[in-house]
Amino acid sequence: MQGLFEAYARERVARIEQALESYLPTATSRLPRILPEAMRYAVLGQGKRLRPLLCGAAAEAVGGSLEQVLPTACAIELIHAFSLVHDDLPALDNDELRRGKPTVWKQYGEAMAILAGDALLVHAFGLLARQAEQSPMERVLQTLRLLCDAVGIDGMVGGQVEDILSEGEPVDAEKLAYIHTHKTGALIRASVLSGAILAGASESQRAALDAYSQSLGLAFQIVDDILNETGDPQRLGKSAGTDRAHQKATYPRLYGLETARRHAHEAIQRALDSLHGFDAAADPLRWIAQFTVERDF
Amino acid sequence: MQGLFEAYARERVARIEQALESYLPTATSRLPRILPEAMRYAVLGQGKRLRPLLCGAAAEAVGGSLEQVLPTACAIELIHAFSLVHDDLPALDNDELRRGKPTVWKQYGEAMAILAGDALLVHAFGLLARQAEQSPMERVLQTLRLLCDAVGIDGMVGGQVEDILSEGEPVDAEKLAYIHTHKTGALIRASVLSGAILAGASESQRAALDAYSQSLGLAFQIVDDILNETGDPQRLGKSAGTDRAHQKATYPRLYGLETARRHAHEAIQRALDSLHGFDAAADPLRWIAQFTVERDF
Repeated sequence: MQGLFEAYARERVARIEQALESYLPTATSRLPRILPEAMRYAVLGQGKRLRPLLCGAAAEAVGGSLEQVLPTACAIELIHAFSLVHDDLPALDNDELRRGKPTVWKQYGEAMAILAGDALLVHAFGLLARQAEQSPMERVLQTLRLLCDAVGIDGMVGGQVEDILSEGEPVDAEKLAYIHTHKTGALIRASVLSGAILAGASESQRAALDAYSQSLGLAFQIVDDILNETGDPQRLGKSAGTDRAHQKATYPRLYGLETARRHAHEAIQRALDSLHGFDAAADPLRWIAQFTVERDF
Repeated sequence: MQGLFEAYARERVARIEQALESYLPTATSRLPRILPEAMRYAVLGQGKRLRPLLCGAAAEAVGGSLEQVLPTACAIELIHAFSLVHDDLPALDNDELRRGKPTVWKQYGEAMAILAGDALLVHAFGLLARQAEQSPMERVLQTLRLLCDAVGIDGMVGGQVEDILSEGEPVDAEKLAYIHTHKTGALIRASVLSGAILAGASESQRAALDAYSQSLGLAFQIVDDILNETGDPQRLGKSAGTDRAHQKATYPRLYGLETARRHAHEAIQRALDSLHGFDAAADPLRWIAQFTVERDF
């Protein structure tokens, strides 16, 4: 399975990289050169592309293709990049290193990082509009609504606010769940559901993929917390233990490492169970789930 | 005319205020209270609502109504508010006062200002999606594309980047035009065109309104520069002379006050001329143009 997944991921990631490269603006004489440069720096040459992979795999699971959802898959990656650029800012997480490179604000200054993040977010919505050239408008608008909910106050940004407010505060299970479902889970869920919607999933397929995505998002975040606590800084591309240093709410802090690991495995099992009604076309979604929990720990 | 415009603006602004109030999120037990609070602080109780007024007036000029375009008109106001919140940040313009109140970062801290700006931008796109409940999807998607172009790297954000890069640099006419067309002009143009598109303007109507909006945007920015140079700080709600202090590119700095005033009047005349094919339904657009140049100077 490992080999099958690797071949699949290599091929799909290459197409995603190529699309991202072509969708991002390039420096022209008309524009301030530094802005497209900072946007490309934030997105290209790094990242596992988990979210666009999920978007494509969900489309495939219901009989569609990555090609069919490529603008939206890339839009979601730009949204992810936007959130990292802003989260790394001195006023927020104050991170200087991401995936082994200086963060955008460290490289281009704070003003440019704020504006490059803004530009990435707007560019992502522009790509969603572009999706309408190849998909029914009804589905595109549904995807737009879904993504706005996943990213805004009731999603990613809301989760980030609560995360910041909770630094140094006592962590309880309810608050930890709120932060993770919103900060990370919402965009993972939207990645899966947007692929499914654009590829024409039925109501029952959507419900199953919704369940899959929520269990996957939970497992992903638990594993991320564990890796931050225990991982090899060189593989992480950033310092390990930064969550603890920021006194962030994490699964290992709340439940201990062993229990956190068990919760991750159980969540992956639930994700796989959600796919029982799907045939081999959903294998990439199954591989991604298994890969998530088998990363580095 | 003054009286007619005042009655018109009072009635329309009241409806816009009411809609903004209802579209913005409120604090609930589920959410971090501070985020909706900061979003509302950034938007409500201040502002001339020029952009939503223009959106509604453009719809009216082609036989539509403000009601018909209200979600989009308010989305544009949220985008405007988002840009002010981020521009005021210490890393950008470092402004502490806006319209007589502490700026969002001064009131809620930098982290919250960055995230509230992000949330306002996403919320605006969510309102555009909501427009599809009452308008043909084709027109909504066209508006979405138009706004992404107006706000992103080829619009407002691009203009802001160039503005920051040009601080303390020699100002030439070409660069000044680039900054103002992008930083302010693009969203004013999009306000007029989105109202026109949603209300079903013909090709030739759109072309005329496009010309109107570009002349209006230019006049608006020249007057804004003049007011910043000469205005009464109490009426401005911020310190006068801040552009000069930041060594910003402005019309009075480049052309002198008298020539700048003449340019503003000429631009308004061109805006009015663009409307020659329209009947009395376009009077609000005419009033707005005249009002723009007759503000405080």
